[in-house]
Amino acid sequence: MSYFRENIDRMAGYSPGFQPRESGFVKLNTNENPYPPSPRAVEAMTAACREGIRKYPDPLANALRKKAAQVLGTRPERILVGFGSDDILTVAVRSFCGPGELIAYPYPSYSLYPVLAQIQEARRKEVDFPDDFSLPGELAESGAKLVIVPNPNAPSGTMVPADELKRLADALADGVLLIDEAYVDFAEWHCLGLVDACPNVIVMRTMSKSYSLAGLRVGYAVAAEPLIEGMMKAKDSYNVSGPAIAGGAAALEDQEWLRTNVERIKATRARLIEGLARLGCPCWPSQANFVLARVPPLAGAERVYNELFARKILVRYFKQRRLEDCLRISVGTDQEIDLLLAAMRDILDATATC
Amino acid sequence: MSYFRENIDRMAGYSPGFQPRESGFVKLNTNENPYPPSPRAVEAMTAACREGIRKYPDPLANALRKKAAQVLGTRPERILVGFGSDDILTVAVRSFCGPGELIAYPYPSYSLYPVLAQIQEARRKEVDFPDDFSLPGELAESGAKLVIVPNPNAPSGTMVPADELKRLADALADGVLLIDEAYVDFAEWHCLGLVDACPNVIVMRTMSKSYSLAGLRVGYAVAAEPLIEGMMKAKDSYNVSGPAIAGGAAALEDQEWLRTNVERIKATRARLIEGLARLGCPCWPSQANFVLARVPPLAGAERVYNELFARKILVRYFKQRRLEDCLRISVGTDQEIDLLLAAMRDILDATATC
Repeated sequence: MSYFRENIDRMAGYSPGFQPRESGFVKLNTNENPYPPSPRAVEAMTAACREGIRKYPDPLANALRKKAAQVLGTRPERILVGFGSDDILTVAVRSFCGPGELIAYPYPSYSLYPVLAQIQEARRKEVDFPDDFSLPGELAESGAKLVIVPNPNAPSGTMVPADELKRLADALADGVLLIDEAYVDFAEWHCLGLVDACPNVIVMRTMSKSYSLAGLRVGYAVAAEPLIEGMMKAKDSYNVSGPAIAGGAAALEDQEWLRTNVERIKATRARLIEGLARLGCPCWPSQANFVLARVPPLAGAERVYNELFARKILVRYFKQRRLEDCLRISVGTDQEIDLLLAAMRDILDATATC
Repeated sequence: MSYFRENIDRMAGYSPGFQPRESGFVKLNTNENPYPPSPRAVEAMTAACREGIRKYPDPLANALRKKAAQVLGTRPERILVGFGSDDILTVAVRSFCGPGELIAYPYPSYSLYPVLAQIQEARRKEVDFPDDFSLPGELAESGAKLVIVPNPNAPSGTMVPADELKRLADALADGVLLIDEAYVDFAEWHCLGLVDACPNVIVMRTMSKSYSLAGLRVGYAVAAEPLIEGMMKAKDSYNVSGPAIAGGAAALEDQEWLRTNVERIKATRARLIEGLARLGCPCWPSQANFVLARVPPLAGAERVYNELFARKILVRYFKQRRLEDCLRISVGTDQEIDLLLAAMRDILDATATC
């Protein structure tokens, strides 16, 4: 006998990337930013740990909403802050998609989406991306209550144009389109403009990647006021910590710090893509802080992953359809990428001489 | 037309207590600890904001689990850490109670329980406490998949004996009993022993009250391994921040700090209860860091609440059945309680002379 609901018993749960507790790893497996956050954010967080931590935080995180609205050129009322963008995803699923109703998203993409659907007992429609990762038309015809499209996509790093997502949003009758822009600060365009144009679009951001705050847990949604107001009812009452409100707001204020790090990462990304191509591992065109590289069949992606692991270099291997011959590699520092490329050359050379 | 699920559209959402952004308030409305957290916790939190905040936290918060297990005399595998105990409640509801299934809890108690049931589209059975707040027998006969009993209860501060909760757990066939021990560090007994005896009992704790860490968002559940393992699948992947893991573990380590503050609060609680009794406002016997006081009908609880508010003294008034003539007052410092009692004397005297 089990005390659990059947859907919970059946499901496996989400597998996060390996987080080593020891140091000494070159960590290119969970798309973290290799550079520290803004010193202003650090100062604000530490101050919030010292002052007022005994009190409950502002349930709506208004200081952070205001700052985000200012940076994005929108209104605070159009912003919902969450405990990381995973929290926003959970709230969106619970707000828009009841048990038995449909959630649609492209495949392969963020592996948390099916887990969220399973917890909610929702039906899932996974629509295959074509090999060039352009937007699959079928998403518009699914009748889903919630369609989620990561843009840039993970793990491919590719992007679809904003006007195609606009058409998708328009085509959904009573469904909501959530555009997961976790990686958008590394990209050439974004879809914030769709929030004004479409009453059913949610654009979601995280401060985990470009703002170097993965450990703090802050993300937010931007959408028309009626969507934000409804989602507020489905979130936990105090879903953002005091240090996260203060640190997130201060990090948003330091746009110069953001730009500098993003430019460094984009430059390193270009070097990484070029280096991998020279090793015979082509990447899809990435607009994120990671790349998806195809490993020659002779070498074997899983074997390369294991050999890198043995050298304490962590990348991500997904043992699943469409990704068996690929590695997802986060863009680290230039030095880390040099170490990775050198190790991969070694490993691939050894294969070639077998 | 609405994009939302019907249950979300219908519901009102949880109303947290007023959190003034300005200073100058005597804040006795949200059961916060008037004393700061352990300096060791502050040190650990600030260090975690400086070091490693760019990386994802440990998804299972193992450092905190280990420390909690040590303090409680149990195993880390029996502990699930959450983003405040509200997160644990959400995870429990989603794990054990599907839409249409039953959640039961006593009334009046924590007003978040019905909200969580509504979000989940679960049925609710609210069983009235008798006036002495002893455990209502009906909870055992409800056939609920999840029964939640706060102990000490909020807002009454009263407690029911552990052996009665044991009998309740035994009586639930395939249901789970969640004992919400948010306030238990201020009480004379607790129910951790039931975790060993009952495969269907979850004991939940928070670090928001006794550990003075409401702004950090940390709580945890203690239960048999199968319950913990299943609930892990239903939680957000990274549901505890890096500073919360570090700060929570360090606070648990400083049991001396906890004991000192708890003793101070219990002493002030006795003074508060005595002072209120002298004003003709008897309290239920409280084992929490707040009291529920009955205000004479002539004075009117809502009016006293408003008059206190006008004097920048915040207490909690619940405009709902059974509580219309009551005020819930958090135990602050001796000085804060003196201010409160003086203001109440003024207000009540003015009523008497009307």
